[in-house]
Amino acid sequence: MDIENAINGTYFDSYEDLEIHRIMLTDKPRQDAYQQAILGHRDLFEGKTVLDVGAGTGILSVFCAQAGAKKVYAVEASNLARLAREVVKENGFEGVVEVVESKVEDFTLPEGESKVDIIVSEWMGFFLLHEGMLDSVIYARDKFLKPSGLMFPDTATIYVAPCSVPGRFDEFESLSGVSLRCFGRELRKQKSDKPEILNVEGDQLLHEGHIMAWLDLKEVSTDDLNEFDMKEVLIIQRAGKFQGVCIWFDCSFPSGNASEPTKEVVLSTNPNSPATHWKQSVILLPEDACETVDKLDPIAFSLSLARNAEHRRRYNLQLTLLDAEKEEHSLPCECVMTKCILMKAHLQSMEVDQ
Amino acid sequence: MDIENAINGTYFDSYEDLEIHRIMLTDKPRQDAYQQAILGHRDLFEGKTVLDVGAGTGILSVFCAQAGAKKVYAVEASNLARLAREVVKENGFEGVVEVVESKVEDFTLPEGESKVDIIVSEWMGFFLLHEGMLDSVIYARDKFLKPSGLMFPDTATIYVAPCSVPGRFDEFESLSGVSLRCFGRELRKQKSDKPEILNVEGDQLLHEGHIMAWLDLKEVSTDDLNEFDMKEVLIIQRAGKFQGVCIWFDCSFPSGNASEPTKEVVLSTNPNSPATHWKQSVILLPEDACETVDKLDPIAFSLSLARNAEHRRRYNLQLTLLDAEKEEHSLPCECVMTKCILMKAHLQSMEVDQ
Repeated sequence: MDIENAINGTYFDSYEDLEIHRIMLTDKPRQDAYQQAILGHRDLFEGKTVLDVGAGTGILSVFCAQAGAKKVYAVEASNLARLAREVVKENGFEGVVEVVESKVEDFTLPEGESKVDIIVSEWMGFFLLHEGMLDSVIYARDKFLKPSGLMFPDTATIYVAPCSVPGRFDEFESLSGVSLRCFGRELRKQKSDKPEILNVEGDQLLHEGHIMAWLDLKEVSTDDLNEFDMKEVLIIQRAGKFQGVCIWFDCSFPSGNASEPTKEVVLSTNPNSPATHWKQSVILLPEDACETVDKLDPIAFSLSLARNAEHRRRYNLQLTLLDAEKEEHSLPCECVMTKCILMKAHLQSMEVDQ
Repeated sequence: MDIENAINGTYFDSYEDLEIHRIMLTDKPRQDAYQQAILGHRDLFEGKTVLDVGAGTGILSVFCAQAGAKKVYAVEASNLARLAREVVKENGFEGVVEVVESKVEDFTLPEGESKVDIIVSEWMGFFLLHEGMLDSVIYARDKFLKPSGLMFPDTATIYVAPCSVPGRFDEFESLSGVSLRCFGRELRKQKSDKPEILNVEGDQLLHEGHIMAWLDLKEVSTDDLNEFDMKEVLIIQRAGKFQGVCIWFDCSFPSGNASEPTKEVVLSTNPNSPATHWKQSVILLPEDACETVDKLDPIAFSLSLARNAEHRRRYNLQLTLLDAEKEEHSLPCECVMTKCILMKAHLQSMEVDQ
């Protein structure tokens, strides 16, 4: 399914393609996390005012109404708002949920209503940041959320780990008894301008995951989202072929009043968790940079996720493999980096690779 | 993955999108069928001349060379031919397989070579006929195949059966405790101009499958492909919700010399067989035409698959539900059809719904 038009110019129109919403609505880990986070914390929602940013089909707003919210503003910029209104009615919450067809940047609360108690939103894109919808959520938070208010979710973490990608390398060594290495090479070349969106298996991870970024969603600013960088030596935890760098994220939700803490709900897109429609984002290595690594081997790379200057909803990903031995020297040193391969994964467009 | 541009104007260019080929190459039932049909019948290939129509990555040509063919002409219209040439070389068959970058309609055999012994091709599209590549195979057969020659595959059968489609109807009755019937309705409306490509489960079939068309690929003409029609009363074999009409196909391959017949190889896209990238094609019923049916209930419909006059590689599908009781009368009779719902599924474009 092509969601290229979900980017930039036609960003909002695309949400009228209901197939994207079908995929999201039938993503069980996604649905379960929001449902448990909201309906498992009725004490937090009872009698409260909620803003749902980018409400889509309105399902999160209905969860909030089911959890006892007094009022829910479901703000949706695309004309899907009209369908959300029907969903709300179908569930008997037209007295609680008010669907507003508007960008949240143009939305205003009715007179008399100053701030909301809770903001809920499902804004996450591939490798967390793709689509850049978090900017709108931050805008809404700064304008509409009470100082003591809650964000659902309230934290997000980006993880990075070296991984094997047999479906892009080894598979083509012999497919039905035919060697297709050159096909694999061409395929990877064709896709090299963007990360691959695919399901990595847990046992294809060569490391449990390094935390590249941790966001407190009550505090983070849009400027904080301009660039994320890491430069790290990681110690391999599982022997295998180092063929790519896997990126995924987790989000967590408020876990109840301090007096009555409950188990924290986490929506995880870790390869070891049940698969979601986000899958994982993988930057493939050039073939000559792939190597077999053993447990305890050090590998080093730097990675940056930086906003595309032209299209602020897109990010450019840049991976640089480094020489772990050189990196382990204290810096500055006189070593010359001998094995530095630069990869630019300009994120032009993304496809859901189901 | 969007393969809309695989249709018509950009038909050949699209084959340069290698992701489509990755999906085909990793379709195990597809690969296994061709591999077994060819390598399981070395006696048929030994010393023979083969034409591979629409060779793609060249994998079928390599199978033929592995099976002992003397010469294989791998004709591929897109510039994928260049990659096929590399695949052939990588497998050491550059002396056997000659890759020709050409439409088969423009291809000529070298002087001295009059006809070929075998034509292999993987030409099948959704519901068998989509993409209309069989026309090219028939053209090649009539021009290049010896009268005693073999076609791989040599038969194709289109099956039709009533089915349940819970993922497009029932699922939306309650999703995470929220009623989303109106969403389901809009989703179906958005998709109603084309059959849905999805995996139907075996137990969602309400009938084992009625043969709508059987093609002897040594005899069929392009005119025979202009229109297929059926009008039938089917007796329900499994109780359930009648929500759509499922279309799939099987292909079979020559099963050896009459003196040494071997088990026939069948490539099946039946919902009861392992899933393929063709999945099944389903025409959804309008919601008010869906009904719960019991074993032995008769249902009646007519279905036509007719070439689009403008775009000959496309087909228009038209389903008409009929009143089974009226249809069971001998015709002509004086009954008035009281329950006739006309559906036109104009096949504008198709998406791989993974």
